[in-house]
Parts: sequence; structure tokens; C-alpha cells
Amino acid sequence: MVNKPLFLNEEQVRQHLRMVDLIPAMEKALIDFSAGKVTQPVRSVIKIDPPGGFLGLMPALTPDGLGLKAVTFYPSNAERRIPTHMATIFLVDPETGTPLAIMDGRLITEMRTAAVSAAATKLLAPPDAKILAVLGSGVQARSHVEALRLVRKFEEIRVWSPTRQHAEQFAKEIRGKAMSAEDAVRGADVVVTVTNSKAPVMKGSWLKRGSHVNAIGACRPN
Amino acid sequence: MVNKPLFLNEEQVRQHLRMVDLIPAMEKALIDFSAGKVTQPVRSVIKIDPPGGFLGLMPALTPDGLGLKAVTFYPSNAERRIPTHMATIFLVDPETGTPLAIMDGRLITEMRTAAVSAAATKLLAPPDAKILAVLGSGVQARSHVEALRLVRKFEEIRVWSPTRQHAEQFAKEIRGKAMSAEDAVRGADVVVTVTNSKAPVMKGSWLKRGSHVNAIGACRPN
Repeated sequence: MVNKPLFLNEEQVRQHLRMVDLIPAMEKALIDFSAGKVTQPVRSVIKIDPPGGFLGLMPALTPDGLGLKAVTFYPSNAERRIPTHMATIFLVDPETGTPLAIMDGRLITEMRTAAVSAAATKLLAPPDAKILAVLGSGVQARSHVEALRLVRKFEEIRVWSPTRQHAEQFAKEIRGKAMSAEDAVRGADVVVTVTNSKAPVMKGSWLKRGSHVNAIGACRPN
Repeated sequence: MVNKPLFLNEEQVRQHLRMVDLIPAMEKALIDFSAGKVTQPVRSVIKIDPPGGFLGLMPALTPDGLGLKAVTFYPSNAERRIPTHMATIFLVDPETGTPLAIMDGRLITEMRTAAVSAAATKLLAPPDAKILAVLGSGVQARSHVEALRLVRKFEEIRVWSPTRQHAEQFAKEIRGKAMSAEDAVRGADVVVTVTNSKAPVMKGSWLKRGSHVNAIGACRPN
């Protein structure tokens, strides 16, 4: 008989997944993808309306494995104080198709997104970058600060968020400074946009020459 | 915090899933689908070659739920004596996207396939059908005999399989008769084709007028 797959809940994932390991893993994944070693069909998405949610399926075959992520995005969950993004990751043995592991994917999604930004920032941002601007104060803002601190030595972290109070709380937590979006972006070496806003939160004219922008979100065409 | 989803392995699924309940559930699913109440994107498939396997993702949103099945099909598993088809089913709360349950899907796939044939047979086969012909002797042959017996009172079950010994073993198990494919099909009221063959296993000219054929398989264009 076939063994039962390993199941890892979010706490178990948290115990084992380290940002410092994840950044080079994402670098390798991006290199493999660009070298044509990855099969990754366009994700399929089901819209659930009402209440205005999405289920997205993201399968992939890489030199290291076979599997998929099922992710849900429900903006209205914010009002219920439950995560807007939830996910489950499912790994399969590429030799036999046998289910190997099922993992809660919420934290993996949170960390992986920031790890990809960190891999890009490592290679593309000015080596002596000192000022980081974060537009947003949610889960991805926190995760990005953790990840980007591993690839650059920032002396100053500036925070803006649509809700002033959130910006101040978050700035305090990461030893940064809350300010306007324009003040945060002007002069910054690295900028991260991590809001759910469908309207632009910054202007290109604010950007310092040579700065690096990690623009997160906008995963759907609207 | 979000509760952890229920996990059901194959034995737990076996304890709870009854063919007699599954057939009307499949009837309802087919009715909902035909009434346009189901969102079901075309499944995405990744080919893993070598060893010549497939991973298929089948998501759906119905009036009763939201979820997906991830199924693997590895014909070469037969040589290793492990199932050629394995699957995992994943249910999500349509209100919030929260993972609800993860179930081993191998047995569900086996039973659901036969339950759909039974729903069709119930409505389309002659009401007084007496003779069932089964071409094939594997997992689906067994499951189909169980399911079809619930919708018609067969007096005779005929079995053919590419390997004569398999046909005889299976015939003994279900109190049927092993014979040639042509002898099995001629005069049968209901015919089931459940082989992995890519070549035709029967001819239309063998069929009795008014007979009902459940043709299983051929899920890929080759």
C-alpha cells in the first residue's frame, strides 16, 4: 500500500522554514525557470461571487519536484479578521505520482513572495542601498522588511500606509519612521509597494535615479 | 486563528463513502452542471516524461461547495504494483476560502467514475436490462459491477479482459462468465469498456439494438 502523505500545519511550517534558506531557493527557482527547466501552466482561477473571492491553482514541475499551490484570496476576510490569502501546497513524487506532502501554504506564500523580492533586490538594487521605503503595513510589508534586511544593510526604513495609525504601529515594530508616501519614496534606494490598492500609490517622478522597486500585487487584470 | 483542515486517508474515506449514496449525488452534480450552476474550468495537465506520467488539476465551484481534485496517472505504476491513478481532493469554504478538508482521492475517483456510469445507465439503459458485458478486469471493472448492480437487476455478467487469466479471476469474484470480447458484447443490454487500451476493444456491429454503452477512459487526446 501507499504511505499516507505528511501533513504540515502552519506552526510546523513556521518551525522549519527560514527566510535565509528561502531566498537562495527562490534564486534557484527563478534561474531554473529562465533556463526552461520548469513546466508551469498558466494558473487557473475560479471567481466566487458573492462574496467576491478567488481560488487559484498553480501547478509546477521543476528539476526538484512536482506539485501545486491552491490559493484563495478573499478581500472581505479582512473585515472578519481572518487572513485574506490562504493556501495549501501539495507535493507529489514525480516518479510515481504518489502524494508526498500537504502543507499549509499561508505562511509559505507570505514568505516566498518576500523571498523573491529579496532575490531580485540582491541582484538589481544598488549594492550600497541605505534607505528602504515600504508602502503598506500588512503581512507582506512585515515579511518584506525581514527578507530585504537579509540582502542589504538599511540605515533607514520609511513606512507609509493608507491608514496612518497602521503605518505608525508598523514603523514602531520595525524601528522605522512613518511619513507620507511621497516623503517615503523620495530619496529611497529600494521601494516596496505592498498594498491592496487598485489605484496608484506612488508616482514615478518621486523615484530617485537608480532606485529599485519591488511592486507586489496586481495579480489579476483589473 | 483558522482551524486546521480535516484530513481523511483512504481507509477513512472507505468507511464513510457508500455507492448507494454516491449515485444520486452524481445525478445531482450532472443536473447542476447541465443547468449552468457549476463553474468548472478546463483541467490543466502537466506531463512528466520520463517516466510518462500526468498530473491533472480539476477545480470546480458548485451550489454545494468549492474545491479541486489533483489526480496523477502513471501507467508504469502497474509494473511496480502500485495504483496507476492516485488523487487528492481538497475542499474549501466558498464563503472565506478557508481550507476545510483534504481527502485521499484514489477511492473516491474509483467509485465516482462508476457512480456516474450508474447514473447514466439508470436513465438511459433498457429498464429490463438483464445482461451486462464488462470489457476489462481492473479497479474500474470491479467498481462498475458494484455500481451497475444497484440500478439494474442483471441475470448474467460477462467478462473479457486482454489477459485471459485476469478475466477468469474477475469473473469468479463477481459470479460472472469469462469469454471473448465479441461473445460478451453480442446480446448484452449494457456494455462497459474499462481497459487502458488505446486500440478499440469492441466493434459497433457487435452491439444489440437498444443496448447502452458506458465507455470509460480516453481522457487525453491520443
